[in-house]
Amino acid sequence: MPSEFQLIQQFFQREQAENPAAGVVLGIGDDCALLQIPAGQQLAVSVDTLVAGVHFPKDADPELIAERALRTNLSDLAAMGADPLWFTLALTMPQADEDWLRGFSRGLFRCAREYGIALVGGDTTSGPLAITIQVMGACQPQHSLRRDGANVGDFVLVTHFVGDGAAALAAIQQEYSFADEHRAYLHDRFYRPVPRLQESQFIRELASSALDISDGLAADLQHICTASDVGAVIYVEDLPLSPAVQSLLEQSSANQQQIYQWALSGGDDYELCFTLAPEKMPELAMLIAQGKLSATVVGEITAGNAVSCELNGELFALPKRGYQHF
Amino acid sequence: MPSEFQLIQQFFQREQAENPAAGVVLGIGDDCALLQIPAGQQLAVSVDTLVAGVHFPKDADPELIAERALRTNLSDLAAMGADPLWFTLALTMPQADEDWLRGFSRGLFRCAREYGIALVGGDTTSGPLAITIQVMGACQPQHSLRRDGANVGDFVLVTHFVGDGAAALAAIQQEYSFADEHRAYLHDRFYRPVPRLQESQFIRELASSALDISDGLAADLQHICTASDVGAVIYVEDLPLSPAVQSLLEQSSANQQQIYQWALSGGDDYELCFTLAPEKMPELAMLIAQGKLSATVVGEITAGNAVSCELNGELFALPKRGYQHF
Repeated sequence: MPSEFQLIQQFFQREQAENPAAGVVLGIGDDCALLQIPAGQQLAVSVDTLVAGVHFPKDADPELIAERALRTNLSDLAAMGADPLWFTLALTMPQADEDWLRGFSRGLFRCAREYGIALVGGDTTSGPLAITIQVMGACQPQHSLRRDGANVGDFVLVTHFVGDGAAALAAIQQEYSFADEHRAYLHDRFYRPVPRLQESQFIRELASSALDISDGLAADLQHICTASDVGAVIYVEDLPLSPAVQSLLEQSSANQQQIYQWALSGGDDYELCFTLAPEKMPELAMLIAQGKLSATVVGEITAGNAVSCELNGELFALPKRGYQHF
Repeated sequence: MPSEFQLIQQFFQREQAENPAAGVVLGIGDDCALLQIPAGQQLAVSVDTLVAGVHFPKDADPELIAERALRTNLSDLAAMGADPLWFTLALTMPQADEDWLRGFSRGLFRCAREYGIALVGGDTTSGPLAITIQVMGACQPQHSLRRDGANVGDFVLVTHFVGDGAAALAAIQQEYSFADEHRAYLHDRFYRPVPRLQESQFIRELASSALDISDGLAADLQHICTASDVGAVIYVEDLPLSPAVQSLLEQSSANQQQIYQWALSGGDDYELCFTLAPEKMPELAMLIAQGKLSATVVGEITAGNAVSCELNGELFALPKRGYQHF
């Protein structure tokens, strides 16, 4: 059986030699990686763990697990307004499964190349399957997207669609039936969520606050409200739904309540939710009109300290709150 | 049951408010931490996972697990010649056990304060108990301690004692019997290994290469040899042994072979192994004489590419190689 060191060499270190990355003074293979941050920029750091049986099915395709793990972490950089630089990987697995590692590293490096982020270090240990990725990025101090900058009167927007993450889980678990094209779309949204890095480059120059939607729009917007000491109202009828999710509405209007719950509380969307002062709206609208950015106004920041929802002018009771691990 | 967010708040975020740390623009609670590296310095990064049942007993005291996890990571910064700045914590646990978290966070922050390193982010997930810590430090570019700088004729040195890590495991597992004072010493060496950060501050200005001994002196010195394209010889009779380990020799000379195996291949020592050009030896000897540093010459760098061992001038067959996870 190959040793830990050979495994690392074989599957992870090779990529480093083939694709040398900017700012990496010393990569995998010493006690630490040595990294050079671009002058004048701050380091943005985020860490996330995916556990088999909790965050993905134990028998899921390792290529897809790798993609999902790295993409969800990249989403945190986008939500901060940071550009990706490097990441580390702590991989725990029951035994050194070469086939699994081959698939995992293929997915990992395909995604890393796509988003210009380099693996600079890691650890492989024996134990129940789990993946911890820490991403590092560079942030211009004046353009970081914090949670604490929202003001009363700001618009609340989300990128692309909300509700796909929860709908995807329902599709994978076969709780709802979707047409093939919609099921394929949702499967891709679940395993290969697109970190909104391109959108972030525009948003970070305009928005007053932002985060990415991992726990569900309502719960995540509450984080902004708490950090900014404001309230918010979400206009439920304005939530942008993908054609896949809309297709359920076309099947039966009885699905509406479930769909709103997915969109408000489902989580795993990895879209950006951000707030925008009204005077910045024309500039953002121009970017949307130019096709540079997909975003929809879904509410506004109010006085108070809580998120409420309205459907066609009536108070809409918030379905159960976002995903909680414990 | 408290939610994930309350748990984080309660056990980890509070410390941040009470002990604000240098360079932390934004700590726990946003999508990313935002960090400012000291001007002119490089970022040193290392990540390690400890899995229950693999790296520590499942029922071990959470305070001690936290100490061990952070200390072994700090050892990597020492081995790189870096000064500690920040760390992230990814904690996976079967359920939100408040007692366990209270003990764990107490040990973690006691250790963090002792070594001047600040928690800046993390993730808590549900799953089998495992702890992934990523440490970040600052490295002066001209004083980083890489593995690839050893030259033929350099001395090989280790700090303090080798063999304690393996002896501690033998004591914990009751394979050998130790006097109470020695057992207490070894227990402390296992759970609270001292990251050699003070020693590193002297060594980084003198040494040609360095690493920390986690896999066993022979296997780790081989990493230096491979990276530097040299060989090495270890003089087994010169290995510095703690009084606890020496006490076994006094019990029976039949223990000698086991002791040499611990010292050469036992691992978990977290001492620094470093190489030194002969002309730097007087300066190092002066530091040792002044009591600023404990280090012992245990061998020298040779031509070739492999580590060999000699006991009183005779070739000494290397016992089985360092700890391997798989």
